[in-house]
Amino acid sequence: SGTAPRTERTIDLAVIPGDGIGPEVVAQGLKVLTAVLPQDVKLETHEYDLGAKRWHATGETLTDEELERLKAHDAILLGAVGDPGVPSGVLERGLLLKLRFAFDHFVNLRPSKLFPNTTSPLAGRPEIDFVVVREGTEGLYVGNGGSVRKGTPQEVANEVSVNTAFGVERVVRDAYARAQSRPGKKLTLVHKNNVLVHAGHLWKDTFDRVGREYPEVTTDYLHVDAATIFLVTDPARFDVIVTDNLFGDIITDLAAAVSGGIGLAASGNINPTREFPSMFEPVHGSAPDIAGTGKADPTATVLSAALLLRHLGYEAEAERIDEAVSADLAERSAGTARSTDEIGDALAARVAG
Amino acid sequence: SGTAPRTERTIDLAVIPGDGIGPEVVAQGLKVLTAVLPQDVKLETHEYDLGAKRWHATGETLTDEELERLKAHDAILLGAVGDPGVPSGVLERGLLLKLRFAFDHFVNLRPSKLFPNTTSPLAGRPEIDFVVVREGTEGLYVGNGGSVRKGTPQEVANEVSVNTAFGVERVVRDAYARAQSRPGKKLTLVHKNNVLVHAGHLWKDTFDRVGREYPEVTTDYLHVDAATIFLVTDPARFDVIVTDNLFGDIITDLAAAVSGGIGLAASGNINPTREFPSMFEPVHGSAPDIAGTGKADPTATVLSAALLLRHLGYEAEAERIDEAVSADLAERSAGTARSTDEIGDALAARVAG
Ligand SMILES: CC(C)[C@H](C(=O)O)[C@@H](O)C(=O)O
Ligand SMILES: CC(C)[C@H](C(=O)O)[C@@H](O)C(=O)O
Repeated sequence: SGTAPRTERTIDLAVIPGDGIGPEVVAQGLKVLTAVLPQDVKLETHEYDLGAKRWHATGETLTDEELERLKAHDAILLGAVGDPGVPSGVLERGLLLKLRFAFDHFVNLRPSKLFPNTTSPLAGRPEIDFVVVREGTEGLYVGNGGSVRKGTPQEVANEVSVNTAFGVERVVRDAYARAQSRPGKKLTLVHKNNVLVHAGHLWKDTFDRVGREYPEVTTDYLHVDAATIFLVTDPARFDVIVTDNLFGDIITDLAAAVSGGIGLAASGNINPTREFPSMFEPVHGSAPDIAGTGKADPTATVLSAALLLRHLGYEAEAERIDEAVSADLAERSAGTARSTDEIGDALAARVAG
Repeated sequence: SGTAPRTERTIDLAVIPGDGIGPEVVAQGLKVLTAVLPQDVKLETHEYDLGAKRWHATGETLTDEELERLKAHDAILLGAVGDPGVPSGVLERGLLLKLRFAFDHFVNLRPSKLFPNTTSPLAGRPEIDFVVVREGTEGLYVGNGGSVRKGTPQEVANEVSVNTAFGVERVVRDAYARAQSRPGKKLTLVHKNNVLVHAGHLWKDTFDRVGREYPEVTTDYLHVDAATIFLVTDPARFDVIVTDNLFGDIITDLAAAVSGGIGLAASGNINPTREFPSMFEPVHGSAPDIAGTGKADPTATVLSAALLLRHLGYEAEAERIDEAVSADLAERSAGTARSTDEIGDALAARVAG
């Protein structure tokens, strides 16, 4: 699911470098993309100046005109946006979530793999190799909330989680298809259906019903609280996880933490119908504290570029990037810190080789 | 906060043993309570037959009459309820959450401590000693949701998180008071105010405003996704955490997992005004798979009994239980598995000593 026949020989890429370490890691992502693509595939990049710097300068997060222009690209590569001077929520709602919703990125794909030679906070370095399919266009992220009597002792602030049969079914189907295509063939639904009984019923019911079309896929259900326990005590039990927007946000950060850290976590905001461009970004933020020091690890962005290629149908090239990252991590010498640029160069050399 | 002068010399305790391992661990909790209390304090227990067995037999979860009777007790000790035959949500909404809401248990207190000699999935066994103050009467737990066109392709299922200034302020105040009384004097607010902007604004604003009354308390804010990362990479950074009902549910299970496991995690559903009885229970479930085998660890229930005593003003006795647990874990011999009963006996002997 989500792949198309590889017909075009040009990739028209929108690039949002963003703030902090964003531009630094994106540069390495582009370097590796260029190196991995066959000579006859042209990579066209169009940079968009979006994020905190832009907001400070103009007060704009994303104009209608930019949104319209972005639609025309094959895909979007984003570094990271934000700095401490921007009030919480401004860039999230005005830029990141705006793109996810406008481009109907209903599959938020987040693989977790404990690569060789990386650090994990977990003792004994368990096997970790699963992927979270997080719903990206519904739930508590819809912005369907409000306050009454704001700022008074009588304030009531509500947030509404909206879940539709349409929205739940399409992401559940995507997750089953992914599970079916993996050796493990196991799909776990994560929710909290003992408390969120209405949304939980819709999710569980859909999960069970669609599952009957995938008799080879083993299924499992976990409450989100229990899922966090297993993510640290038995992550090997997971193969594909499907979950809602907020639970997915929470468990994928935890998943990243246990599998090598946020510096290695890639993500794709995918519209499998290809009606709108999908967007690929590292899970980490703009890390203003290390911006400009060369300390940022571009690996998560490079892995996000692999997800991008896979989505566009360049499976072999995506695979080469994944293998390069794996080999690079396995063979790097302990104790020597490499700069952002050096890691990018090493990965570019491997995929070109 | 939450303690009252110790005037009465009788503790009138409602006991809900529940299902599975519930009765087994509750028996040990009562054994230790009896052993730790001074001769002149009478422990009166009144058992309530509630949980899965009762529901299977009568279809009832908690009658109005029982709720009324429960009100009269000084406190409630609960083991665990549930079995696989009860549909998800029935006992949660009909019994556990009904009690939390009816008795206005707005402080859901969950300490996490990595005791000596316990197993942690975290490498290097970091220092862990924090307490989560989870809001217990609002948020997504209010049961304010519903479905339209249920069971059709047009279904929409909503869940509403309700947050009031009244409800947020009282739990935030409780958390500041707890932080102020601890050596670390640090309070972390966990929320997701970059996405849940309305509820997040109310929480953050209240947190900042009340904080001005506690100049000695260091404050910190973390998004819930980032909090899960730090819980596995740097749990020592936490002292007191305050958070909403759902985030609290999630992070306390994770906290339990990293600090010795769910078998050691205690909790109190506390009404600090003492208008209604508070309820104390281990975080774990009824574990039907090990019921009757003597494998259940009663320590979480015993630690919950310590929280109960502390709430009722028996601080010295609570402290004795905490110390007994600590010593018991430190001195137990590796490799020898003790039965539920043996652990209870060992702890009872220590606190009596
Ligand atoms: C920045 C924020 C809106 C976003 C989210 O909550 O989805 C981030 O945490 C993520 O996981 O991509
Ligand atoms: C059983 C369930 C309703 C409950 C909750 O979600 O609060 C449990 O997970 C807990 O943490 O006490």
